[in-house]
Amino acid sequence: MPDDIAERIARDGWAVSRWFNAQEPPTLPALAGKVVVLHAFQMLCRGCVLHGTPQAQKVANLFPPDRLAVIGLHTVFEHHDAMTPVSLKAFIHENRIGFPVGVDEASAGTYPIPATMAHYRLQGTPSLLLFDREGQLRKHAFGQIDDMALGAEIAALL
Amino acid sequence: MPDDIAERIARDGWAVSRWFNAQEPPTLPALAGKVVVLHAFQMLCRGCVLHGTPQAQKVANLFPPDRLAVIGLHTVFEHHDAMTPVSLKAFIHENRIGFPVGVDEASAGTYPIPATMAHYRLQGTPSLLLFDREGQLRKHAFGQIDDMALGAEIAALL
Amino acid sequence: MPDDIAERIARDGWAVSRWFNAQEPPTLPALAGKVVVLHAFQMLCRGCVLHGTPQAQKVANLFPPDRLAVIGLHTVFEHHDAMTPVSLKAFIHENRIGFPVGVDEASAGTYPIPATMAHYRLQGTPSLLLFDREGQLRKHAFGQIDDMALGAEIAALL
Amino acid sequence: MPDDIAERIARDGWAVSRWFNAQEPPTLPALAGKVVVLHAFQMLCRGCVLHGTPQAQKVANLFPPDRLAVIGLHTVFEHHDAMTPVSLKAFIHENRIGFPVGVDEASAGTYPIPATMAHYRLQGTPSLLLFDREGQLRKHAFGQIDDMALGAEIAALL
Repeated sequence: MPDDIAERIARDGWAVSRWFNAQEPPTLPALAGKVVVLHAFQMLCRGCVLHGTPQAQKVANLFPPDRLAVIGLHTVFEHHDAMTPVSLKAFIHENRIGFPVGVDEASAGTYPIPATMAHYRLQGTPSLLLFDREGQLRKHAFGQIDDMALGAEIAALL
Repeated sequence: MPDDIAERIARDGWAVSRWFNAQEPPTLPALAGKVVVLHAFQMLCRGCVLHGTPQAQKVANLFPPDRLAVIGLHTVFEHHDAMTPVSLKAFIHENRIGFPVGVDEASAGTYPIPATMAHYRLQGTPSLLLFDREGQLRKHAFGQIDDMALGAEIAALL
Repeated sequence: MPDDIAERIARDGWAVSRWFNAQEPPTLPALAGKVVVLHAFQMLCRGCVLHGTPQAQKVANLFPPDRLAVIGLHTVFEHHDAMTPVSLKAFIHENRIGFPVGVDEASAGTYPIPATMAHYRLQGTPSLLLFDREGQLRKHAFGQIDDMALGAEIAALL
Repeated sequence: MPDDIAERIARDGWAVSRWFNAQEPPTLPALAGKVVVLHAFQMLCRGCVLHGTPQAQKVANLFPPDRLAVIGLHTVFEHHDAMTPVSLKAFIHENRIGFPVGVDEASAGTYPIPATMAHYRLQGTPSLLLFDREGQLRKHAFGQIDDMALGAEIAALL
C-alpha cells in the first residue's frame, strides 16, 4: 500500500476516494465521543443487500445520532467494473440508505482489495467494525450478525 | 384480588400456582443482582408462538445466566379450559422452552384475568417486563418487540 | 384396528370422532368432483403452527370452494391429554381456521396413533394428502411443502 | 418506437440488444410448445432482488425445461448509467441466475422506457408476463406475486 494511503487510514480510520450522503468527509477522530459502526459492503453482494445493509440502516435509526454514527464503506474487491461510483449512487438511492457511504480507496497497482479493507484484513462482505467512543476497534465481524447480539454489543459501548 | 395473593406478588414479584423447569420457585428478590426478563404469554396466542416465546428463549441463550434470568409466566385470560397446566407442559416440551415457566395464579371468583397479569395491568399477550438488577420494573411492553432494541435495552441494564 | 373403524375409513375416507367448522360431517364420497386436500396436524406441533396449517388455510382461500375442499384432521399421536377437543376448539379460533377440522378417531386400546393416521401410514405431522376429483389418493407428503410446488400439483388435478 | 424495433417485438416477442446465459437468442416462436414466463426486472430494484428474481429462478427449477422456459428481461427505465450490461453480468453471476437474460432494447431518442417494456405497457419492475404454449399472453402482473398462485397458474397452462 502506498505510504500516503496508509497514512490517511492511520489518521482518519479509513481512506475514501469519494463520499455519498456526507457534507464533510467523516473521520474517526472527528467522531470521537460517539460509537462508530463501520459497515463494509459491496452493492452486488447478496448477503449485504438482504441482511447487512438493512441492519446497518436499522442501527442508524435505532440509536441517537449524537451518540452513535454509522459509516458505510463500499469495499469492492471483485467485479470492479460492475460496481462503480455511478452504480453505487443509484444503489444508495434505491435502497434508501441515509448514512454516509465512502468508496474505499483503491490499493496500488492491480491488487484487487481496496486499501481500508486490506488494512483491517476484512475477509469479505458484509463486514462490521465496531469502534468505541475513544475510536478503539472493539469488534470485527464477517457475515450475518444477529440483531439482538449487535444491539447488546452497541449498547454496552454507549 | 385476595389479600394473600396480593401479598405474594408484593413479596415475590409474581404469584404462581405451579412451576415448570424450576427446582426452586424463582422469586424476584432471590434473583437480585440479575436483570430479569418476564415473558407473559398464552400457549394459544399466535403472536407468542411466532415471536414472543422464541425471542424470550433467544434472550436466555444470548446473555450469561449469572447476570440475567428469563422467567415465563402463563397468563391465561381467555379459553381457560383449553390452556391447562397439562397442555402447557406439552407446549413447553414441544417448543423446547428451557427457562422456568410459572402458571399465573387465578384471581378470585370469575374474574378471567389472572393475578400477576392484573397486578401489572398487562394489556394482553405477549407482554414483556424488564426488571433491573435491583428488581425495579424498567420496561413494560405489549406485542412484538424488535430484537435489536431489546438487546440494547437489556445490555444497558447489565 | 376395530372393524367398524376400518369400515368407516373405507367408506368415508377417514374416521372422525368430532367435527369443528362443519354442519354436516364431510366425507370423501360426498366431496366427489372436488379435489380434496387433507391436512393432518397436531395443535402443538411447531411445524404445523408455523407452516402447515397456514398453508392449508392459504389453499382454502386461493382455490374456488366449488372445485376444492380443504379438510383438517387432528391426528394426535403424543401428548394426548394436552391436545383435547376443548383445546383444539380454542386453537381453531385463535388461528382463524375456517375449513372443517375433524378429530381423528382413537385406535383401539392403548395404541397411540389414531385410526386414520394409521390407515394412511402417516409418518408424523404435518402431513398432506391430496385426493383427485374421483377420490383417488394422488399425493402423500410429510413435513414442509413448498407453496409453488403445491399450487402446481393442485392445479394439475383441477 | 422505430419500425424495425416494433417489427422485432412483433416477430420475436421482445427486442433485446444483448443476451446473457443464452447460446442462441431465444424467441417466443422458437419456444412454441412451452409455457414462457417472462420476468422483467432491474438489477437495482429492491423488490426484484428480494422477491421477483428468486421467484423466477424457483419457477425455472421447479418445472421441467422441456415444458416451460423462463426468460429474464432487464428493463431499465431509470438510473440507466448505473445498470449497464457490465453491471448486469456481475449481478447475474452474484445472484446465481441460470436462465437467459436479455437487455431490453433502448427506445429511440431520450425516451427512458425501453422498447419491450413500452410495448407491453409494463408499469414497473418486477413484472411478470405469462405466455401459453401457443405464445399467447395470458397474464400480466406487476409487483410481488404469491408463489402458490403462480404455481397454480403455470400448471393450468401446462
